[in-house]
Amino acid sequence: MKIITISREYAAGGHSIGRKVAEELGLEFYDRDIIRESAKASGMEINQVEQAEETFSRADSILHSITPISYDQKDVLYEYQRDIILQLARKGPMVLLGRNGNVILREAGIESLNVFIYADESHRAARAAELLGLTHPAEIQKAMKKIDHDRHTYYSHYTGRRWGDISDYNLALDSGALGYDGCIRLICEAAKL
Amino acid sequence: MKIITISREYAAGGHSIGRKVAEELGLEFYDRDIIRESAKASGMEINQVEQAEETFSRADSILHSITPISYDQKDVLYEYQRDIILQLARKGPMVLLGRNGNVILREAGIESLNVFIYADESHRAARAAELLGLTHPAEIQKAMKKIDHDRHTYYSHYTGRRWGDISDYNLALDSGALGYDGCIRLICEAAKL
Repeated sequence: MKIITISREYAAGGHSIGRKVAEELGLEFYDRDIIRESAKASGMEINQVEQAEETFSRADSILHSITPISYDQKDVLYEYQRDIILQLARKGPMVLLGRNGNVILREAGIESLNVFIYADESHRAARAAELLGLTHPAEIQKAMKKIDHDRHTYYSHYTGRRWGDISDYNLALDSGALGYDGCIRLICEAAKL
Repeated sequence: MKIITISREYAAGGHSIGRKVAEELGLEFYDRDIIRESAKASGMEINQVEQAEETFSRADSILHSITPISYDQKDVLYEYQRDIILQLARKGPMVLLGRNGNVILREAGIESLNVFIYADESHRAARAAELLGLTHPAEIQKAMKKIDHDRHTYYSHYTGRRWGDISDYNLALDSGALGYDGCIRLICEAAKL
């Protein structure tokens, strides 16, 4: 069994899928826990740190109104996150959501099955509406665009790579077409190969 | 059971994988047959037509020395190919390799499971050496680059899309990491979802 990293477009179901895959395979699932650990290690406030994850770009977040942390703080935080990810990876198999895990592990020479979860806008919009508590289609579109943009920027800034570039992953799944359960099944199957 | 289209990087095993998936699911497999049908329908020579597939760009092919067919002839041929693909699709499920099948079917409103097969250069180089009968690494690299470039150009020219863009597919598989047998298993699984 390998470490499984899951990268995902916003509202494509990556979190639910990852959690379920971990359950089915009997592995630990890491998501916000890593942020908490990083925050503790760095001495920053947890809400600042959570925000740094999703709002790397300069554009004002339409969802939060927290004072942004500085670029330097973000870089410090990223180093803490990387260390924590590598510590966890050395303990053995796990499911790791986001956090550029695929690239961090590859650069450290640690093998992993790297999964990318995406879906077309119509499928994601329905889930985004639920997650954000928004109802107006234009608002939902704007929020999705902003969050996607933040993820792209975060990934490119720290990895020097284009976010969603297929060559960074071993398996990419359209959760709109395959369904969440279908994705869970295919990832579990791939993990056992 | 849906129509399955398979697009693939050169020497990533897409042909073998597609043929095996068709066998396992009891479906027809279409590859060069479509070219033959198109050639017959258009009255062109079969070797010209085959070459048009792989050498769309102006750069001289390092693999063939056949007189290239004109852009106009290529466009005519493409129309014949599209018609044949749509005729086949209307008959029912099948496995269709390359030929921009994913986009042609989508534009015609026909549902399909669209798969992309890729692999890193080291895995592809070994298979390319076999396919092309080349032994020198620089020669193999050059040939792979040329064939990939031709496929990109062909795809972009006719679809207006970037080749390998994940949103054109429902399932993308790294045959280097997952193995040919692994890819076959995952595609068959996805087809049954």
